Amino acid sequence: MSRIDGRGHEELRPVTIERNYLKYAEGSCLITVGNTKVICTASIEDKVPPFLKGTNQGWITAEYSMLPRATQVRTAREVSKGRPSGRTQEIQRLIGRALRSVVDLTLIGERTIYLDCDVIQADGGTRTASITGCFVALLDALRHLVDQNIIEELPVNDYVAATSVGKVNGELLLDLCYEEDSQAEVDMNVVMTAQGKIIEIQGTAEKEPFSRDELNTMLDLAEKGINQLVSLQRKVLAENR
Amino acid sequence: MSRIDGRGHEELRPVTIERNYLKYAEGSCLITVGNTKVICTASIEDKVPPFLKGTNQGWITAEYSMLPRATQVRTAREVSKGRPSGRTQEIQRLIGRALRSVVDLTLIGERTIYLDCDVIQADGGTRTASITGCFVALLDALRHLVDQNIIEELPVNDYVAATSVGKVNGELLLDLCYEEDSQAEVDMNVVMTAQGKIIEIQGTAEKEPFSRDELNTMLDLAEKGINQLVSLQRKVLAENR
Amino acid sequence: MSRIDGRGHEELRPVTIERNYLKYAEGSCLITVGNTKVICTASIEDKVPPFLKGTNQGWITAEYSMLPRATQVRTAREVSKGRPSGRTQEIQRLIGRALRSVVDLTLIGERTIYLDCDVIQADGGTRTASITGCFVALLDALRHLVDQNIIEELPVNDYVAATSVGKVNGELLLDLCYEEDSQAEVDMNVVMTAQGKIIEIQGTAEKEPFSRDELNTMLDLAEKGINQLVSLQRKVLAENR
Amino acid sequence: MSRIDGRGHEELRPVTIERNYLKYAEGSCLITVGNTKVICTASIEDKVPPFLKGTNQGWITAEYSMLPRATQVRTAREVSKGRPSGRTQEIQRLIGRALRSVVDLTLIGERTIYLDCDVIQADGGTRTASITGCFVALLDALRHLVDQNIIEELPVNDYVAATSVGKVNGELLLDLCYEEDSQAEVDMNVVMTAQGKIIEIQGTAEKEPFSRDELNTMLDLAEKGINQLVSLQRKVLAENR
Amino acid sequence: MSRIDGRGHEELRPVTIERNYLKYAEGSCLITVGNTKVICTASIEDKVPPFLKGTNQGWITAEYSMLPRATQVRTAREVSKGRPSGRTQEIQRLIGRALRSVVDLTLIGERTIYLDCDVIQADGGTRTASITGCFVALLDALRHLVDQNIIEELPVNDYVAATSVGKVNGELLLDLCYEEDSQAEVDMNVVMTAQGKIIEIQGTAEKEPFSRDELNTMLDLAEKGINQLVSLQRKVLAENR
Amino acid sequence: MSRIDGRGHEELRPVTIERNYLKYAEGSCLITVGNTKVICTASIEDKVPPFLKGTNQGWITAEYSMLPRATQVRTAREVSKGRPSGRTQEIQRLIGRALRSVVDLTLIGERTIYLDCDVIQADGGTRTASITGCFVALLDALRHLVDQNIIEELPVNDYVAATSVGKVNGELLLDLCYEEDSQAEVDMNVVMTAQGKIIEIQGTAEKEPFSRDELNTMLDLAEKGINQLVSLQRKVLAENR
Repeated sequence: MSRIDGRGHEELRPVTIERNYLKYAEGSCLITVGNTKVICTASIEDKVPPFLKGTNQGWITAEYSMLPRATQVRTAREVSKGRPSGRTQEIQRLIGRALRSVVDLTLIGERTIYLDCDVIQADGGTRTASITGCFVALLDALRHLVDQNIIEELPVNDYVAATSVGKVNGELLLDLCYEEDSQAEVDMNVVMTAQGKIIEIQGTAEKEPFSRDELNTMLDLAEKGINQLVSLQRKVLAENR
Repeated sequence: MSRIDGRGHEELRPVTIERNYLKYAEGSCLITVGNTKVICTASIEDKVPPFLKGTNQGWITAEYSMLPRATQVRTAREVSKGRPSGRTQEIQRLIGRALRSVVDLTLIGERTIYLDCDVIQADGGTRTASITGCFVALLDALRHLVDQNIIEELPVNDYVAATSVGKVNGELLLDLCYEEDSQAEVDMNVVMTAQGKIIEIQGTAEKEPFSRDELNTMLDLAEKGINQLVSLQRKVLAENR
Repeated sequence: MSRIDGRGHEELRPVTIERNYLKYAEGSCLITVGNTKVICTASIEDKVPPFLKGTNQGWITAEYSMLPRATQVRTAREVSKGRPSGRTQEIQRLIGRALRSVVDLTLIGERTIYLDCDVIQADGGTRTASITGCFVALLDALRHLVDQNIIEELPVNDYVAATSVGKVNGELLLDLCYEEDSQAEVDMNVVMTAQGKIIEIQGTAEKEPFSRDELNTMLDLAEKGINQLVSLQRKVLAENR
Repeated sequence: MSRIDGRGHEELRPVTIERNYLKYAEGSCLITVGNTKVICTASIEDKVPPFLKGTNQGWITAEYSMLPRATQVRTAREVSKGRPSGRTQEIQRLIGRALRSVVDLTLIGERTIYLDCDVIQADGGTRTASITGCFVALLDALRHLVDQNIIEELPVNDYVAATSVGKVNGELLLDLCYEEDSQAEVDMNVVMTAQGKIIEIQGTAEKEPFSRDELNTMLDLAEKGINQLVSLQRKVLAENR
Repeated sequence: MSRIDGRGHEELRPVTIERNYLKYAEGSCLITVGNTKVICTASIEDKVPPFLKGTNQGWITAEYSMLPRATQVRTAREVSKGRPSGRTQEIQRLIGRALRSVVDLTLIGERTIYLDCDVIQADGGTRTASITGCFVALLDALRHLVDQNIIEELPVNDYVAATSVGKVNGELLLDLCYEEDSQAEVDMNVVMTAQGKIIEIQGTAEKEPFSRDELNTMLDLAEKGINQLVSLQRKVLAENR
Repeated sequence: MSRIDGRGHEELRPVTIERNYLKYAEGSCLITVGNTKVICTASIEDKVPPFLKGTNQGWITAEYSMLPRATQVRTAREVSKGRPSGRTQEIQRLIGRALRSVVDLTLIGERTIYLDCDVIQADGGTRTASITGCFVALLDALRHLVDQNIIEELPVNDYVAATSVGKVNGELLLDLCYEEDSQAEVDMNVVMTAQGKIIEIQGTAEKEPFSRDELNTMLDLAEKGINQLVSLQRKVLAENR
C-alpha cells in the first residue's frame, strides 16, 4: 500500500538545506522537508545564564515558533496569550538538549548560542527538521568563532539529525507528513548521531500501546532516514569552506 | 557494585499506595516511592474542553505541582512567576496522555476528569510515581460513576504504571532516586500496560549517546519494575470493594 | 442548641500537630483542625528582600495555597490564572505579619524564613490553622539555627496562635467549620499571644453590623480557644528536645 | 503632648466632600481628609458577575488606585507590574464589603455598581477616606436609579463611614496621618454605621501586641470620629435635593 | 456652519492651567481644555534606564492613564488586563518624545523625569492637552533642580504645545471635542514649538484620504491654536517666580 | 553628496514582491526592499471582533513581528516578555488602519482578514514595506473570496503603498535604510493612494524641529517613491490572472 504522497514506507520526503539564508546571523539556514520549511539561525552572545556564571563554560539554548499562517488554518501568535504553549516549550527543550549533546560546552567559553527555529510552513516534522537544520546553523556559528580566533577548534563530537517514525493504519512509516501524523496510532521522534547512537527517543501511543518489536522496526527506519540526513548535512557543510 | 541506598540494579524502592487519602475527591491516594511522596486526586466535572463540545465524549487531563519545600532547597512557587514552567507542562502533558490511553473516553459522556498530582516530597521519579498513583485515583473516580449509575461499566482497557530507568556510572539501573538521576548518563521514563506494551517511552542521553542494546536492557528493567507496580495497584484496588 | 458537629459553643474541633512532617525543611508540621489539614514548613534562605539589604536584619514571609481538591468542588490552580487571588494574598500577608510580630528580626541576621502553608483539606479556618501550625514550624527552624551555632539564642518573645469566632444564626461560636462559616452573620479571625494580648483582629459583618458587646463576647471565646492551642504547641514543641 | 499637626488625640483632620465632582459618573465626589484626597465615583452597569446571573440581584464592587505621584516618592503604576498588589486588592475588597453591607442588593436588580477610588494625594487613611467618600457617590448613583424610575426606593439601610485609630508612641490617637501611621505600634481601621454598630474592624499590632482595654479605648475614639463623618455625609447629601 | 458647542472653526475650547496642583511632585498642574481635564506631574528620580548608564545623560519618559469614569461609559482599568493597551502605549511614547525634543538631556545628569498624565475627565484631545500641561510641570521640575543648585541653568530650548485638528463633515476644524472626533474624516495631532516648527505630526484618514492642500490648511489651524497655548504657558509660568 | 549605498536622494532601494510565497494562506507575498525582507500573509476567518457582531460588516487587522535574528544583534522574542512592545503595537495599528482605509468593509460580510507581517530581515522601513506587501496579499485574499463566489466584486477603492522619508545630516532623503534612519534628524512615514492622497502621515523630529517647507519637500519625495511602489504592485497583481 503506497502513502498519501506516493512515497515508500522507508522513504524520506525531499530535503534541502540552504545555508547562510540570513545576512546577520553567525549561522543560518532554510531547511525544507517536503512542504515543511524552517528558518534556523544560530546567534552568539557573550553571556551565560546565571547558573553558569563563573564556570568558564558556555550554553546552547533553542527557541521555536511558527508563523501564524504556517498552518492550514491560522494559529494565533503565542505572544497574544502572553506565553509559549506547553507544546512549544517541550519542543524547544528537546532541540536545545539534542544540540548540546554533541558540543563540548567547556570549550566555547562563557557564551550562549541561541538556536532560533521559525517555522515558515508546517506539514509535519517541524521539530525534527529544526534539529537537523540547527546542526548546520550551529556549525557555521562555531566555525565563525574559530575563524575569529575566539576558540581554537570546533568543539563538536558528532553529527546530529532527527526524524519522525510512526505507525499509521497498522503500517510502520518513516518521516510522517501532517496528514499521516494526525491519524497515527504511534508517533515517535528520534534524534541520532552519525554513528547511529541514540540521543533522544520520544515515542507515544496515541491510540493503542505498541510492542517491543514494533519499537525496534521503527528505530531501524529512523536510523536509515537519519543516515541520509547526515549525508546531506555533510555535503552542504563541505561547500564554501 | 551496590547502589547509594543499597538496592540491587533491578530493584524498585519500597512503594506504598494509601487509597482514599482525601475526603472530598471522587478518587485519591498518597503514593510513596522511597522518599518521593505524591498526592494524586481524580475530580469529575460535568463539562469538557471546547474542542469536545457536542461530541458526547469525555476528557482526562492532568496537573502537576510541587510544594515549595518538597525539594532539598526551597523552590519558588510557579504562581509567583505567573505560569507553569516548561518542565511542569511537559510532565502534565505526559501524565494526561498516559492515563487517557487506557480509558475509552466515548463511554464517560461529556465529563472531564482532572488528575491532580501534588508532590509533597521529591526524591526522583515524581512523574512516574504520579502516573502509577493516578491510575488508582482514576479507577476509584470511574467506579464512583458506575456506583452512581452514571455510566454502565468501567471504561478501562488495561492497567498502566510507570517507572524510570537509566545509566549511572556505566551501570543500567531501575527506578533512579534523585542522587542517581542527577548524575545519570542516560535517563528514561517508561509507561507500560500490564501486558508489557509500551504507552510512552522518553529516553534522553544527558551526557553521551546510548546504543540500541542499552535501550533494550533498560526496557527489560522497566518492564520488570512495572509488573511489580501493577501488582500493587491490583492489590490496593481489590480492597474495600 | 447544639452545633452541626455536636460541639458546644465554646469548643474547638479536635486539633493535632505532627511535627517534622517533611524530610528536607528546617521546620515542618501537619496541623489538623477537624477536617482542615495544612502542611506548614519553614525554610531558611541566606538572603533578604531588597529593602533589608545591608541592615543586618532578617525577614519572615508566608505563602499560602490550597491543593485543587482540598475543597468540596475542585478549585482551579492559581497558576492557571497567572497570579494569586486577592484572598490568597490577604491570607499570606496576615500569616507573615502574625509570625513576624513575635520574632526579633534583628537577631536572625540577613536571612529570610519562608513559611509555606499548603492546605491539603479545607473545612474552614485554614488561615488560623496555618498561623498556629507555622509557629511550630518556625520554632523548629529557629532551633535549627541555634543548633548550628548560627544564632545564639531563640529570638522569640511569645507563643502565637489563632482561631476564628463568629455569629451564626444569632449564636456566638468558637472555631467555625466551613458550613457554619458560610452562613455566618459575623466572621472574625483573632491572633493572640499566650498572654492573651491581641496581635491581629479582623472582624467582618457579612450580613448585619454587630455591637460592641458582641465583639467582647467573641473575643472571650477566641481567648479561650487560643489558650488551648498554645498548650498544644507547648506540648509538641517539648517533645524530642 | 500634642500631635505632629497640632491636633488633639480625639480630633479628626479637616474633612470636605465635594459632590458631583465629575461630569459623567452617576455619582461622584472628591473627599479630602487633611492632605489626603480621593476621587470617588459610582458607575452603574446593567450586568452582574457570573455567580449572580439569573438571581435578580445586584452587586457592588470597588476598585482602588493611587496616582503615581500621590505619594512623597513616586510609586510605579501597578499596570507596569501587570497586576494590582496584595495591598491594593485587600483595600478594594474591604471597600466593596463595607458598602455592600448597608445596601439591599435584591432591590437594585441585575446591576453592578462600580465604586472607583482614585487617590490623588496620599497622607494616610486613604482606605477609610475612600469608604466615607464612596458612600456619598453611591447614594447619588442610587438616587439616579430612583429618579429614572428604575428602582422604587433607596435600598440603603444606614449610613456608613470609616476612620483609622492607632497607638503611636504609647498614645491612642484618632485619624492617623501618614507620619503617625508609619511609626504606629498599633494600626486599626474601623467601619461603622450611624448607629455605632461595627461593620468591619481590622487591627494590627505592628510592633507590640495590644490589650483588650486598649482595643476598647480605640473603638471609643473611632466611634466619635465616625459620628462626625456621618454628620458631614448627611449635610452634603441634603444639598441640591 | 457653527460647531456643536458654538465655537468657530479656528477657535480653541477654553483652556486653564492650575500650576502646583499636587503637594509632593517637583512639578504639577491640572490642565482643562473644555471638559477635558488632565493632572500632569513631573517627578525626578536619580537613576536612568540601563541604556543610559554611565553616559552622564538624563532621560524623560511619560506615562498616561485615564480614570475609569473619565469617559461617558466606564472603561475597565488597564491593570485588570495586565498591561497598557496599544493606544495607551502609543500616547505615552508620543508625549515622551515631544517633551524630550526641547530639553538638552546632557545637561540634567543621570536623572529620569517621569511625566505622569492622568486623565480625570475625557472629552477629546487628551494626548495633546497632556503635552501642553506636561511642559508646565516639566519646567517647574527643572526649575526645582536649578533652585537646588543641582543643575546650573534651565536646559530647555523652546516652548512646546500641542493640539488636534481634523476634518468633520467636510469642514476643517481646530481642537476637536469628543463628539467631533468620533465623526471625523481626518484626525491629526500636531506638536509645535513657539517658533511654529513641527516636532510631531500624526495625521490619519479615518474615512477618506486627504489632499496636500487640506494638510496645509489644517497645519495653519494648528499653528494658530498652538500660539495661544504657548501664550498661556508663558503666562502661568511667569507667576510666582 | 551620495548616500551610504550610493543611491540618489530621491531613489528607492531595489524592491521585489514574490506573490503566493506560502502554500496555505489565501494571500501571501515576500517583499524585499533592499536588505529588508518581510513575509506578508492575508488570512480570512469567518468571525468578527465583538464590536462588529451583528453589523454585517467585516474587519481587517494586522499583526507584526520580527524573527529574533532579523536584526544585527539578536532581539529577544516578545513572547518571552509576555506581550508585544509599544513599538510593535504602534506598527500593527498603523498597518491595520492603512489597509482598512481602501477597503469597503461593508462588502465583505462578517469576516476578519488577518494581515500577518513577519520580518525575516530588517534594514529599515519594515513597517512601510509591510504596508506595501500587505496590499498585495490582501488583494489576493479578496480575489479568493470573489473566486469562491462569497463576495460579488473586489471591495477595494484604490491602491495603497508606503515609504519613509527623512532628514539625515541636513539632507532630505527617500526610503531610509537602517543606518540612515538611526542618525536621522527627522523621520517620517507616509502612506498614500495611487492618486497621491494621504492616508497616514507620521513625522517625528528626532533631534530638531522641522519647518513647513521641509515637510513639503519630504512629501514630494514620498509621493515619487509611492508612485513607483504602486506600479510594482500593479505589475505583480496583473500576473497569473
